[in-house]
Amino acid sequence: MRLTALASLVLAFAGTCLAQDSGTFKPATSNVLDAQYPRVDNDSRVEIRFKAPDAAKVRVNFWSGPKADMEKQADGFWTFTTPPLAPGLHYYTVIVDGAEVSDPGSTAYFGGSKWASAVEVPEAGATYYLPQDVPHGQVREIWYNSKVTGTWRHALVYTPPGYDAQIKERYPVLYLQHGGGEDESGWTRQGRANFILDNLIAARKAKPMLVVMANGYARRAGQTVPDLRGKGFGSPEMRKVMQDMMTAFEDDVTQALIPYIDSNFRTLTTREHRAMAGLSMGGMQTFHVTFNHLDLFTYIGGFSGAANAFAAGSDKLDTKTAFNGAMADPAAFAKRVHLLWFGVGTTEPERMRQGIQKLHASLEEAKIQHVYYESPGTDHEWQTWRRDLQDFAPRLFQAAAQKSIAAAQKK
Amino acid sequence: MRLTALASLVLAFAGTCLAQDSGTFKPATSNVLDAQYPRVDNDSRVEIRFKAPDAAKVRVNFWSGPKADMEKQADGFWTFTTPPLAPGLHYYTVIVDGAEVSDPGSTAYFGGSKWASAVEVPEAGATYYLPQDVPHGQVREIWYNSKVTGTWRHALVYTPPGYDAQIKERYPVLYLQHGGGEDESGWTRQGRANFILDNLIAARKAKPMLVVMANGYARRAGQTVPDLRGKGFGSPEMRKVMQDMMTAFEDDVTQALIPYIDSNFRTLTTREHRAMAGLSMGGMQTFHVTFNHLDLFTYIGGFSGAANAFAAGSDKLDTKTAFNGAMADPAAFAKRVHLLWFGVGTTEPERMRQGIQKLHASLEEAKIQHVYYESPGTDHEWQTWRRDLQDFAPRLFQAAAQKSIAAAQKK
Repeated sequence: MRLTALASLVLAFAGTCLAQDSGTFKPATSNVLDAQYPRVDNDSRVEIRFKAPDAAKVRVNFWSGPKADMEKQADGFWTFTTPPLAPGLHYYTVIVDGAEVSDPGSTAYFGGSKWASAVEVPEAGATYYLPQDVPHGQVREIWYNSKVTGTWRHALVYTPPGYDAQIKERYPVLYLQHGGGEDESGWTRQGRANFILDNLIAARKAKPMLVVMANGYARRAGQTVPDLRGKGFGSPEMRKVMQDMMTAFEDDVTQALIPYIDSNFRTLTTREHRAMAGLSMGGMQTFHVTFNHLDLFTYIGGFSGAANAFAAGSDKLDTKTAFNGAMADPAAFAKRVHLLWFGVGTTEPERMRQGIQKLHASLEEAKIQHVYYESPGTDHEWQTWRRDLQDFAPRLFQAAAQKSIAAAQKK
Repeated sequence: MRLTALASLVLAFAGTCLAQDSGTFKPATSNVLDAQYPRVDNDSRVEIRFKAPDAAKVRVNFWSGPKADMEKQADGFWTFTTPPLAPGLHYYTVIVDGAEVSDPGSTAYFGGSKWASAVEVPEAGATYYLPQDVPHGQVREIWYNSKVTGTWRHALVYTPPGYDAQIKERYPVLYLQHGGGEDESGWTRQGRANFILDNLIAARKAKPMLVVMANGYARRAGQTVPDLRGKGFGSPEMRKVMQDMMTAFEDDVTQALIPYIDSNFRTLTTREHRAMAGLSMGGMQTFHVTFNHLDLFTYIGGFSGAANAFAAGSDKLDTKTAFNGAMADPAAFAKRVHLLWFGVGTTEPERMRQGIQKLHASLEEAKIQHVYYESPGTDHEWQTWRRDLQDFAPRLFQAAAQKSIAAAQKK
């Protein structure tokens, strides 16, 4: 190997980069190797430091946070310190003379349709999404052949601790979807879903389950995509493409992915043992897929994203007709769908919060059994969705468990 | 979700980005989603396009290739087209007014101690590292608790097709290490090791095996790292840190990782069924670990990296004393080590090629059984290492197979 590269690696790994002394700042846990920046202090302020010796202007762009000019230092680095930020993982980019790029000190996370930077701001006392000294499940990359898309598709599967050893055991499955601009890596890389499940399972707060994280973009085999240049978001052409993506995804999940998972993993295959949830775009997809296939799913979660089920111009859900009429009879619905769950962060943009709150209000009024959760002080970001999963996962597959216990007691 | 984000995603996914018409250029397979740039033409030329409307100077920096000024276009994008490049995955960065950054059109690959860009240049006729219509193994993320480092450590494990179904079958294991500045994700993300194995196994050219890809950086629990600021590469302080990293890695592999793998996967646990190989820094580590533990390994591979086994100032290996004297008796060595394998690319920097060629020459002269492979026309880059693995993997575990067959025939 190149000796100079090795030397600089050793230097980086040894953590001797020239960090400025300053209060309680520590390198973010989301940094690469031992990169000293970005760093976070005890007040949740984030300091960004970015090398751009010849730039005229460098800005930092937190996607759900500060957007500000950075300050040039004598050594060619630009710095900026944020005000205290909410806990969680915050996507950001740096804009160097008009070029929006990632910070090389950060781990790359797939978001905004590119590999972006993010900084982890710890939440005081919150350990539920951190790797603990408990048994760890595996996260498996799989490739399945989809007749729907005509391609090999990549997905991730969390298998709980003990899956390989308990070879007679079968497990329920949660299908868990990422948001728009993200991909199937989001729930483990950004969301730490595997650690959340590890910790819940170790504490016996959630049943051991598989979590399948699929890629949310699907294009039907042979389907041509129209030229969308110049077409607006609400244009019929754009709506058609989105609708096609949605139904291709629906068919891929129900006709290719679920059969593959049930054939290749030791799953419990009835609807009592299958859940689906997703965040943002993934929440919309979850509602679309599950309500079209209630024969397959019993547990449904929308994290900062649910259904566009309101009639045009209306603020209220028509629970008699919405979702193919699944809720028309609240008692029958409660029996059929063991969990209907919505969540939203209290500092998410007004438009997003309102959509979910109105759905909640409509369901309350019609006495449709559901759970509504608000994540205090978090935005349309991963801390909201980690909390959602932490609240959602323990509620899963309990009805089936109670049934099994009841059945066992009868014998 | 944000409607504008969704709209731009749909646009990206629909592939309607404004691509300039130009010859046979096609988007690189290493791009994110449907990003149109970088793109590659039939002559293996790569066109980079990078948005930096306010920059004064933008350079492209292929780490083993062209380093050149890009040309500003009227639309705020900068472009550059390389001369024909060798096939394979080429790391590159873009330097915007002195800031070295990744190209948002590229998938991010961990190299150079950061998440960098790379462009895949196809090799005419070469399909061995591409996903084919064959059964696919899984790539599993695992976490193991290392008493050596005092931390939970992350590794990847390739399990061959059928591993979950053939529950009585046990498998040999190849430990496969990344290079300096890379991490455990390199062999699958950059190297496509899983597809190489899938294809070899489907063609019955390699035995089904596990491939364990560990993180090559290890720091012993409680070990403090000296301040290396201002210390040169050859300084005693730096050498000490490197030596400590090496032995911590050695202990982690032999005392934590191997026992974990053998306890948690259905492996064949004798030395006849264990191989180790690595590229560049990983090759050096392989030689260090295996020759200190010949009780554990029977197959050894160095890909563009082997041992610093020459005496100071000498161009020749003293095969009587090198490697703890393991080669002193060539016949005994050939019996004990079933495969000693070296490879190097013909266009790698002179210094690297010479080190490996001299090792080869010394072994030839001393009649030490080994395999020496040159990858034609490739540099210190992933195409060399993909070819290395393609040549190396089929040679593994064949002696054990022959022994088993002989034993079976005797019965």
